Amino acid sequence: MKLFYSPNACSRAVHIALVDAGAEFEPVQVDLPGGEQRTPEYRAINPKGRVPVLVTDRGPLTEVLAILAYVGQAYPEARLAPLDDAFAMGELHALNSFLASSVHVTFAHYFRGPRYAEGPAAHEAMKAKVPPTLHEHFTVLEDRMRGPWALGEIYSVADPYLFLMGAWLSRAETFPALSRYPKLADHAKRMRERPAVQKVIAFEDARIRG
Amino acid sequence: MKLFYSPNACSRAVHIALVDAGAEFEPVQVDLPGGEQRTPEYRAINPKGRVPVLVTDRGPLTEVLAILAYVGQAYPEARLAPLDDAFAMGELHALNSFLASSVHVTFAHYFRGPRYAEGPAAHEAMKAKVPPTLHEHFTVLEDRMRGPWALGEIYSVADPYLFLMGAWLSRAETFPALSRYPKLADHAKRMRERPAVQKVIAFEDARIRG
Repeated sequence: MKLFYSPNACSRAVHIALVDAGAEFEPVQVDLPGGEQRTPEYRAINPKGRVPVLVTDRGPLTEVLAILAYVGQAYPEARLAPLDDAFAMGELHALNSFLASSVHVTFAHYFRGPRYAEGPAAHEAMKAKVPPTLHEHFTVLEDRMRGPWALGEIYSVADPYLFLMGAWLSRAETFPALSRYPKLADHAKRMRERPAVQKVIAFEDARIRG
Repeated sequence: MKLFYSPNACSRAVHIALVDAGAEFEPVQVDLPGGEQRTPEYRAINPKGRVPVLVTDRGPLTEVLAILAYVGQAYPEARLAPLDDAFAMGELHALNSFLASSVHVTFAHYFRGPRYAEGPAAHEAMKAKVPPTLHEHFTVLEDRMRGPWALGEIYSVADPYLFLMGAWLSRAETFPALSRYPKLADHAKRMRERPAVQKVIAFEDARIRG
């Protein structure tokens, strides 16, 4: 398998989950700052022009949530998802879907303004709304957190995604600090103690350009 | 079970899937135009203040994608998801995640501007970007469509969601017409022939206020 990723992009959640699963894969770096994701060659792999993509022997899979679900199901011995419990799987997907369609989307309004509107005035207006909206989102996440892991007692593919979104709070001074959400800060600390997390962070951070 | 919904909101996809599954549930209408979703009573059910919520005997589930996944797994005899195939499930989730975090989010920039920025100038700038972005999204959806159903030969919980997002193209004259995407238009026609779809549309449309 090949994982198309960019260092510290949302692909990092998938990257950690693949290491957690003990999967064999080759990480392939995509030069997002250089616009590689918009080249015809990359669009042939993912017409949406985004990372991550996991290329499997059955074909490519896109979207963080979908690749996380795949890793959870394809490596059952790693016990990264409560596969036989429809309700618990619903909770797993509910968290990941909130992270993808609300939390990640809110960050994108700060860093990827041209995705949503043209012109610096609109970008500034969107940016201004990001810190309070992030606080709303992270309050929801903090309140739902039982711990020690995202789903409670069992570690799952939701944990790297929750961890990554929390880590992104350090990207701008106007964002609320993760320390405002004690249960999430505690979760992040626990995540950083995991060898898979340490390995992926070291690997990706060594490849950040500029 | 109780389904908290609003007529023709994204909850409609879940509503159709529940009827497809033969599930027993009570639809409970939430007055979105009247702001019921922001009341303390509703926040106690869903702190995020959105529809849909499916209240099960294990507790509430939120997020369209997550409830669709739950319905697919909790009613295996209805065969609404390729449950035993990790890659096919990945494709199902990839489509639903794109619909949730890209397509639905783009519609929200037209109809729910205050969610993303303050001020009429920013709202107009976001609105202006919606039609070309929708065309990009629906081109991706059209190109990936094999038919007759969203995942190919098997009908799944992705079909009502894909159908609903296509139907929303009729909400503004500046949006691209669904007829520009022949395979999706054909899919919509096939969906409208299904008794579950007809039943939910008739039920919800009779309850649209104003």
